[in-house]
Amino acid sequence: MSNRVAVFRKEHFNAAHRLHNPAWSDEKNFSVFGKCNNPNYHGHNYDLIVKVVGEPDPQTGYLIDLKMLSDLVKENVLQKFDHKNLNLDTAEFKDLNPTAENIAIVIYNILREKINKKFDLQIRLYETERNFVEYPAN
Amino acid sequence: MSNRVAVFRKEHFNAAHRLHNPAWSDEKNFSVFGKCNNPNYHGHNYDLIVKVVGEPDPQTGYLIDLKMLSDLVKENVLQKFDHKNLNLDTAEFKDLNPTAENIAIVIYNILREKINKKFDLQIRLYETERNFVEYPAN
Amino acid sequence: MSNRVAVFRKEHFNAAHRLHNPAWSDEKNFSVFGKCNNPNYHGHNYDLIVKVVGEPDPQTGYLIDLKMLSDLVKENVLQKFDHKNLNLDTAEFKDLNPTAENIAIVIYNILREKINKKFDLQIRLYETERNFVEYPAN
Amino acid sequence: MSNRVAVFRKEHFNAAHRLHNPAWSDEKNFSVFGKCNNPNYHGHNYDLIVKVVGEPDPQTGYLIDLKMLSDLVKENVLQKFDHKNLNLDTAEFKDLNPTAENIAIVIYNILREKINKKFDLQIRLYETERNFVEYPAN
Amino acid sequence: MSNRVAVFRKEHFNAAHRLHNPAWSDEKNFSVFGKCNNPNYHGHNYDLIVKVVGEPDPQTGYLIDLKMLSDLVKENVLQKFDHKNLNLDTAEFKDLNPTAENIAIVIYNILREKINKKFDLQIRLYETERNFVEYPAN
Amino acid sequence: MSNRVAVFRKEHFNAAHRLHNPAWSDEKNFSVFGKCNNPNYHGHNYDLIVKVVGEPDPQTGYLIDLKMLSDLVKENVLQKFDHKNLNLDTAEFKDLNPTAENIAIVIYNILREKINKKFDLQIRLYETERNFVEYPAN
Repeated sequence: MSNRVAVFRKEHFNAAHRLHNPAWSDEKNFSVFGKCNNPNYHGHNYDLIVKVVGEPDPQTGYLIDLKMLSDLVKENVLQKFDHKNLNLDTAEFKDLNPTAENIAIVIYNILREKINKKFDLQIRLYETERNFVEYPAN
Repeated sequence: MSNRVAVFRKEHFNAAHRLHNPAWSDEKNFSVFGKCNNPNYHGHNYDLIVKVVGEPDPQTGYLIDLKMLSDLVKENVLQKFDHKNLNLDTAEFKDLNPTAENIAIVIYNILREKINKKFDLQIRLYETERNFVEYPAN
Repeated sequence: MSNRVAVFRKEHFNAAHRLHNPAWSDEKNFSVFGKCNNPNYHGHNYDLIVKVVGEPDPQTGYLIDLKMLSDLVKENVLQKFDHKNLNLDTAEFKDLNPTAENIAIVIYNILREKINKKFDLQIRLYETERNFVEYPAN
Repeated sequence: MSNRVAVFRKEHFNAAHRLHNPAWSDEKNFSVFGKCNNPNYHGHNYDLIVKVVGEPDPQTGYLIDLKMLSDLVKENVLQKFDHKNLNLDTAEFKDLNPTAENIAIVIYNILREKINKKFDLQIRLYETERNFVEYPAN
Repeated sequence: MSNRVAVFRKEHFNAAHRLHNPAWSDEKNFSVFGKCNNPNYHGHNYDLIVKVVGEPDPQTGYLIDLKMLSDLVKENVLQKFDHKNLNLDTAEFKDLNPTAENIAIVIYNILREKINKKFDLQIRLYETERNFVEYPAN
Repeated sequence: MSNRVAVFRKEHFNAAHRLHNPAWSDEKNFSVFGKCNNPNYHGHNYDLIVKVVGEPDPQTGYLIDLKMLSDLVKENVLQKFDHKNLNLDTAEFKDLNPTAENIAIVIYNILREKINKKFDLQIRLYETERNFVEYPAN
């Protein structure tokens, strides 16, 4: 354990997606991805938790203003993905399979550009209450 | 309050949908349904709570076997809607807008056929944690 | 809808139980109750919600002091059932099958004696997050 | 059960309050309200669920647009109470004890003015996860 | 933080247990374990979260197929422990006290044999919403 | 990952607070802290999770008795902060801004004195369901 503080902000978005590898036959796609391969898409309520780690500012007692962090996530992540079809409506998943793992990595890469490098960053993404991922892993 | 017992079984399914009235122009659809009108669909994790009301069997102490109720919901509701595009993949929403209100009414009508008439039935459907509906209303 | 207020207090207890009708053969018990009939018992974290309905006192703005209601439930329900084997350790379920339906009815009858008759009372009992009951039903 | 649909919208606000009846002595206030009578206030994250009951519009499949309902609650309830001291900062609780029961009744009366009379309205308010109220009661 | 991804799958099971050290007197057992030492057992709804850490497969975008992980947990953990008396019905706890700590270690050891060694594994087990454990600890 | 176990205990308290730096003008305070700077305070239901890490005792199978840990938290943390105004009623926040980050650090320092040094300690504090902090960070 370090001597630093972590702050977390939870947001959510709703999206349609389909798991599919275009390099494979339909049969192989169905055998690997099952009902998640449905050609007409299905969808999820994604819960997103953004974790930022560092040292609080002694004047404010804040590590980072969570209102600003929330606005940053809304502008850079939710506006891209909320109420969208990830496969059809987004540049990020045109050629990348929108598994929870890949969505978390994409969101990490988007936010890593926007958040001061003195802070560490980690993404947790819930695809359902029972299936979720974290990137980078502890 | 009656002298009867209610039992509840919670299930869930994931689906894509789009809110759209084909009798309207695209402009009117967008002005009424906003981002829920996205032509490429979006999606949700739907939580479904089925409530059955009546008198328990004195020999078992059960109103209804919740394993049987769960199987009934899986066979008649989840197999139709889980990992589907409600607008494209289901007969029920070919000509009916898949709002939470209409999905709850459709599920009620499906299950009402399958559950003994001596029991009352009520459906609660969560589209998100913050938006949910009940049919019929108390 | 009436003009009255409902107040709710949530408590919980942990107990072992087994579903079994002593008038039946072992085979019949197993065919009806399945794994819930395990002779060595299994267990649950029960979540209990007590609903009391009536008119608030204009001097306090309280319908009933929820601290008093909580103490009443602890003394009369949790002390009987928490960390107990419902079949073996309680008088109430010596000859009554401890289904969720019956546990809710028993708790209702216990609390009905202790709570002023001017108030209506309703019990909701969660056996698991997905299986729950209410008595009396709305 | 009726033939109508209920829709629910969940919102939340954070506020400070103190339970106190100015007609009573300090001793009586403390004996009735205990630590909730702390002169310097304490606070809660209030979860508010607004239930609206009626018949859906056949053209939209909506009972009421939940985005509009959410905006209505934000403008008329959250702007008044969020991040406020209920006793000191609000006209509603200048002379009314801000118990959960009274807060629910006040919110009901505010929203009843703003929502079409053809719809029934009910308020559920969580003061904590374990203490909550409903007005009017079923 | 590493450059790897973690995936999580949540499952649950219901079981009876009793905390007891057979090397001690009844008095000592009761003084240490209190009501958890009840001779007739009590029970819990255990929530189990399995965390697997590694590098996703670039062809699927999956670290591990969560359906396969869920089946693995069902076959190797839930079939042993669900609706069982941990002290009486399982080989694992014949001579090992079924505390949450020990149950988590036992589940880790079972799954560690079944999951590819290139992946790290961690178990989180909720005995109640308020008491939970993790093994191995971060 | 180590070979050790972590145990977690969840508690909660309700408090009023105000974010304010007395070295700054009112304008600057409002521009930094916004509605959290309200002079008459607002409040929260704080959820507190205490994590203790170490090696379980082979005789009990416990890392630490969670009943004792809960009592320790109640006596040393909840008695200080529950139903209090953090700014006015507590010595800890007389000159320290009661942000979630600072509250977590204060609670860590209180409990670090009371818990055996052979154990590691970590605090997670939820100010709301969507805003939370951890100290020390992983």
